[in-house]
Amino acid sequence: MSRKVIVGAAQLGPIARQETRRQETRRQAVARMIALMRQAHARGVQLVVFPELALTTFFPRWYFDDPAELDAFFEREMPGPETRPLFDTARELGIGFYLGYAELVWEAGQARHFNTSILVDGRGDIVGKYRKVHLPGHHEHEPWRPFQHLEKRYFEPGDLGFGTWQAFGGTMGMALCNDRRWPETYRMLALQGTELMMLGYNTPIHYPPVPAHDHLQGFHNHLCMQAGAYQNGMWVVGVAKAGREEGCDLLGQSCIIAPTGEIVAMADTLEDELITHECDLDRTREIREHIFNFALHRRPETYGLITQPTPG
Amino acid sequence: MSRKVIVGAAQLGPIARQETRRQETRRQAVARMIALMRQAHARGVQLVVFPELALTTFFPRWYFDDPAELDAFFEREMPGPETRPLFDTARELGIGFYLGYAELVWEAGQARHFNTSILVDGRGDIVGKYRKVHLPGHHEHEPWRPFQHLEKRYFEPGDLGFGTWQAFGGTMGMALCNDRRWPETYRMLALQGTELMMLGYNTPIHYPPVPAHDHLQGFHNHLCMQAGAYQNGMWVVGVAKAGREEGCDLLGQSCIIAPTGEIVAMADTLEDELITHECDLDRTREIREHIFNFALHRRPETYGLITQPTPG
Repeated sequence: MSRKVIVGAAQLGPIARQETRRQETRRQAVARMIALMRQAHARGVQLVVFPELALTTFFPRWYFDDPAELDAFFEREMPGPETRPLFDTARELGIGFYLGYAELVWEAGQARHFNTSILVDGRGDIVGKYRKVHLPGHHEHEPWRPFQHLEKRYFEPGDLGFGTWQAFGGTMGMALCNDRRWPETYRMLALQGTELMMLGYNTPIHYPPVPAHDHLQGFHNHLCMQAGAYQNGMWVVGVAKAGREEGCDLLGQSCIIAPTGEIVAMADTLEDELITHECDLDRTREIREHIFNFALHRRPETYGLITQPTPG
Repeated sequence: MSRKVIVGAAQLGPIARQETRRQETRRQAVARMIALMRQAHARGVQLVVFPELALTTFFPRWYFDDPAELDAFFEREMPGPETRPLFDTARELGIGFYLGYAELVWEAGQARHFNTSILVDGRGDIVGKYRKVHLPGHHEHEPWRPFQHLEKRYFEPGDLGFGTWQAFGGTMGMALCNDRRWPETYRMLALQGTELMMLGYNTPIHYPPVPAHDHLQGFHNHLCMQAGAYQNGMWVVGVAKAGREEGCDLLGQSCIIAPTGEIVAMADTLEDELITHECDLDRTREIREHIFNFALHRRPETYGLITQPTPG
């Protein structure tokens, strides 16, 4: 049986805020995603990867003191009325997708907020869910910043850990944005057998705490994903929301990375753009059975500090 | 007090085997290293980093069934008669050094073999010792290979773990060769505060299990070290034994990498070559206090598998 999956990375350009016409904005974003799914279908794609928080503008850039205003960016059900067309299109075309969105769930009378991704198969069924573990940014309003990055305020850390799912002929893993900077993310997925990791991101070019690093954002983005792919022998599909969104420049350079760490496809715009690659999941073995054969070469007895709480 | 250290990466070209004239070969290698130390002194260097197994040819490329023939490549004391001139030169010039060598120690009537590095200060005193944790290669003779890589046969895994030392105005860490491919190495050192990691390597260009990756050796070498530097906000000094040694091509491209992951100095030959850079240890803070602030952003409670034994 073939272990080749044609994957599409469906970068999105900016999504305007328009919070007063929320429904229309979501509908517009969904329409753009469906257009990308139809392009993907025409190019033989079986699995489309969308960005993090793909349904709205990247709202953690603003401080909201009105909970209702904040919660308007969150999905209370998935699919909901505005997102159901994505699932219908998946079923119609027989294409799966990865989607990042803001998730609001009620548990024991408490609202809980997560930065979430789901994996949907070609029948339109949700087969996997991940909630972002590594939340970047800050918790308090910091008016000195040109834009806030309030993920630590608006989301709880993911409570599902790092998981994998059997789908698309192999073992699939999910992560979100800042997770890609942490080598532990890739390792946790690879130790569970992940062969292809999907990851959406929203990454401002400007990093207010150390502006001298702004020109390195693209380098760091690829460096972490390429190293994670190689050191774990897995495909990595990293997909941006890109371009100037509400005055804030977001990194593009969405890419598909082979288990050798090589970038084999990359977006060349900051707009809605589809890139594709046929990913042979068996190529993970070139790495995982040799140079990074975990059973032969890892020395977990020397890694103790990694799972201990970091001194504050 | 200044936290800037001028570091020299002292790449070595090939060292011939000449096992029948062992002493002369070691003396020759030491003479070459002393020449590099004198060059370094003239360029203001305070700390010179030499390669892994810097005193002899890379002997794990051969299968030896005579233990005496094998043990001839090992040092029984450090300094010994042939290596003492390195320590004398360090004291004379007030320059410290990192040196990789094969270490043979007797414990409870048993010979133990390690792939070891030491850190020597500008008074010629050994201030730190590390024994390689991640031994690559194979344990049994595999005659189908053009060259063996018998590190797993000839060495025990290091029994000292990953340590750090206060020296040269900061916190120093050591690792060896294949350790650089494993993100756990950098993380273990960084969690203990390492600001500058020294690493020597001997890396054949030809990787017999997957020859299709040979052309990627240089890319993989830099990818791992650059990611490790950035993801841990530390300086990394990677130093090769380079060139065609006994018919086997060894990777060069020794480099000094900033805490941003940028290569700031690189060797341009496959011979004895010194490259230098002034490393400001305070630049680690740009990374470690912000994007990779471990206390704020790590989620060790989700990393459990990393310290568990890998299923075989």
